[in-house]
Amino acid sequence: MISFGGGLPAPDLFPVQRFEEACHKVLHEQSATALQYGETEGYRPLRELIANGMARDGVPAKVDNVLITSGSQQALDLIGKLFINAGDRVLVEAPTYLGALQAFNVYGAKYLTVPSDDNGLRTDLLEEPLRSNPKFIYVLPNFQNPAGTTLSEERRHELILQADRYGVPILEDDPYGQLRYEGKHLPPLIALDRKSFSHDEGDSLGNVIYLSTFSKTLAPGLRVGWIVAPPEIISKLTQLKQGADLHTSTFNQFVAYEVARDGFLEQHVQLIRRVYRERRDVMLQALKEFFPPEVTWTHPQGGLFLWVTLPQGSDMQAIFKSALDQNVAFVPGHSFFAQSSHGIDNDGISNNGRPADRHMRLNFSNAAPEQIREGIARLAAAVKSHLSPATLPSALPIEVQQLRH
Amino acid sequence: MISFGGGLPAPDLFPVQRFEEACHKVLHEQSATALQYGETEGYRPLRELIANGMARDGVPAKVDNVLITSGSQQALDLIGKLFINAGDRVLVEAPTYLGALQAFNVYGAKYLTVPSDDNGLRTDLLEEPLRSNPKFIYVLPNFQNPAGTTLSEERRHELILQADRYGVPILEDDPYGQLRYEGKHLPPLIALDRKSFSHDEGDSLGNVIYLSTFSKTLAPGLRVGWIVAPPEIISKLTQLKQGADLHTSTFNQFVAYEVARDGFLEQHVQLIRRVYRERRDVMLQALKEFFPPEVTWTHPQGGLFLWVTLPQGSDMQAIFKSALDQNVAFVPGHSFFAQSSHGIDNDGISNNGRPADRHMRLNFSNAAPEQIREGIARLAAAVKSHLSPATLPSALPIEVQQLRH
Repeated sequence: MISFGGGLPAPDLFPVQRFEEACHKVLHEQSATALQYGETEGYRPLRELIANGMARDGVPAKVDNVLITSGSQQALDLIGKLFINAGDRVLVEAPTYLGALQAFNVYGAKYLTVPSDDNGLRTDLLEEPLRSNPKFIYVLPNFQNPAGTTLSEERRHELILQADRYGVPILEDDPYGQLRYEGKHLPPLIALDRKSFSHDEGDSLGNVIYLSTFSKTLAPGLRVGWIVAPPEIISKLTQLKQGADLHTSTFNQFVAYEVARDGFLEQHVQLIRRVYRERRDVMLQALKEFFPPEVTWTHPQGGLFLWVTLPQGSDMQAIFKSALDQNVAFVPGHSFFAQSSHGIDNDGISNNGRPADRHMRLNFSNAAPEQIREGIARLAAAVKSHLSPATLPSALPIEVQQLRH
Repeated sequence: MISFGGGLPAPDLFPVQRFEEACHKVLHEQSATALQYGETEGYRPLRELIANGMARDGVPAKVDNVLITSGSQQALDLIGKLFINAGDRVLVEAPTYLGALQAFNVYGAKYLTVPSDDNGLRTDLLEEPLRSNPKFIYVLPNFQNPAGTTLSEERRHELILQADRYGVPILEDDPYGQLRYEGKHLPPLIALDRKSFSHDEGDSLGNVIYLSTFSKTLAPGLRVGWIVAPPEIISKLTQLKQGADLHTSTFNQFVAYEVARDGFLEQHVQLIRRVYRERRDVMLQALKEFFPPEVTWTHPQGGLFLWVTLPQGSDMQAIFKSALDQNVAFVPGHSFFAQSSHGIDNDGISNNGRPADRHMRLNFSNAAPEQIREGIARLAAAVKSHLSPATLPSALPIEVQQLRH
């Protein structure tokens, strides 16, 4: 089975030797604290390391702006717990990260959806949903999951402006921000929204809650993520986290700190970028080579995913089944759309919250380049076998095809 | 500071060498899976090890009865999420584990409280609260936190009978069950309630959900606990866990398995029992030696805590402050009582849900024996300085005291 399905990092890039040294050091020098109960907020040196990383990205975060979470999935859960009462609305991109919808659904969230295009969330369509008083805006600005698109700098400013105008907090989910393979690094929303930090400005509170994780840069098996937010929000989330799991594994926090420190994280990220960029390029090349011309896809500047769009009327269920029969897996796009009472399709068509199921999310980080090529060839065969002849030039009789240039 | 406050295991008993071997083995042989995302249900060999442990305790659990959680605090949170809607009632012991109240409060739980005595929960007082339709009964049968008392075998049967009669599930929280220092091991409620297991009996479902953890037997810093329940419940909790944190750290589950396997856990528990038994005995002896005779305390047969009761009218806040001044800490009993609209005191007195604050929870696992003795002496001084002369023979003038006997 060649899987483009999950969002799995490449296991051959896990820095195993560095992990081994870190475990050894932590157990030899700090076992009495590293194996004991810890503070709910997290291991202080790790929080400082994260705050310093944010500072390099233009965010003047201090240690009390950082809460360590059990992966960023837990951050989504805690924020759902804090903000959402049954029936409350959350503004999300269409499509958006499935796990966020799972986390928010538990608290009875309803959704307002805004479509995205190659420049990310369509900020020109924000005003109407913002008038419906969403509790917050959930957005993945960099290399979005599932679409692979990036919110342009202009739209970042526009999003902050509008959110501020309507007094709606922004939840900025940024698991892939460090994994950029081309183009200019864009400042996170939380950096653009300087008011988020009250340290120098008295009571002035910001509008952005920022999430990230070590899952894509070190290893997901650690389950160490974090939230950066004003101290008042951090304090409320800390109380909720205490009831939820007391604290994130002390041992893993000590180990993550020992692995990441002294510039190792930044250096390791360079390696990941090189490897994933190659895989992305192989996938883009294979798509171009094997897929029929009516099929389109996004060109991600980073991250783990790209998003394929088939012609209207494609039978996604049949394609999915054929792909599995040929031992290749992907995630059909349908699951990434929140149900919304007044959704608008990417083509601007009202869709009653049920967009046509004609998308595939493809992951390019987990498989080796030769597997990617082979997998895309198989997937192309599955796709071609289910496109209707009307939309499929390559399915026309050879003689007819040859009439086209 | 000598702390009898937390529920911290003794760090000098963490099996550090075994942890180091386990980390080394896991990273050398299984890094690609151990550092990767894992299944929400947990690492299968660990689930099997837990199921086998339950089987030795008379519980015919299989792997699909086990869900790994991020400490048993997460189990409490997930169960709150599954069962409690705002305003629902939960039947709890008075006093009970503070962290459970924190977990359930988030979901808007109301409480029905039943007092306990030296034989645990007063099952003779269960009928009235059970008629008020609680969503479940939360109980710690072994070496209760905070009281240190154990539910007698007779009452275990009575509890199951009554819960079954009213169709109310039991949540059995058993973090300390393996840490018995005297007396006969009693079967867990889930073993007495054989109907919990549907494997041989078709659709017949049990009434008990069982929780435990490696926090007191290996190390709390791992945050690895588990739930044992019928597969239908496990399946619902698994869905909720996926939204809450995807899964518990794969690495920690692999490491916990490598540490615990091949009988190491059982052998290590023997060592913990010896050390904690001595500490308990030192604390009991010191209490007898230093505390005034109007003060009483429980005699725990295992676990980490004992529960001290001061005379009516004691000024707990003043005692707590004096103790801190003398560098000794404990947890005042007040926090362990759920607010209840119709609470009954242990003396059978209606208390409007606000029992008199005249209890202290003392932990005896974390401090060394000589510290325990010194700490209890200091605590006794703090207590004596705040008992009213009317209730305090030892505060009477020496000459008057000598007239006694």
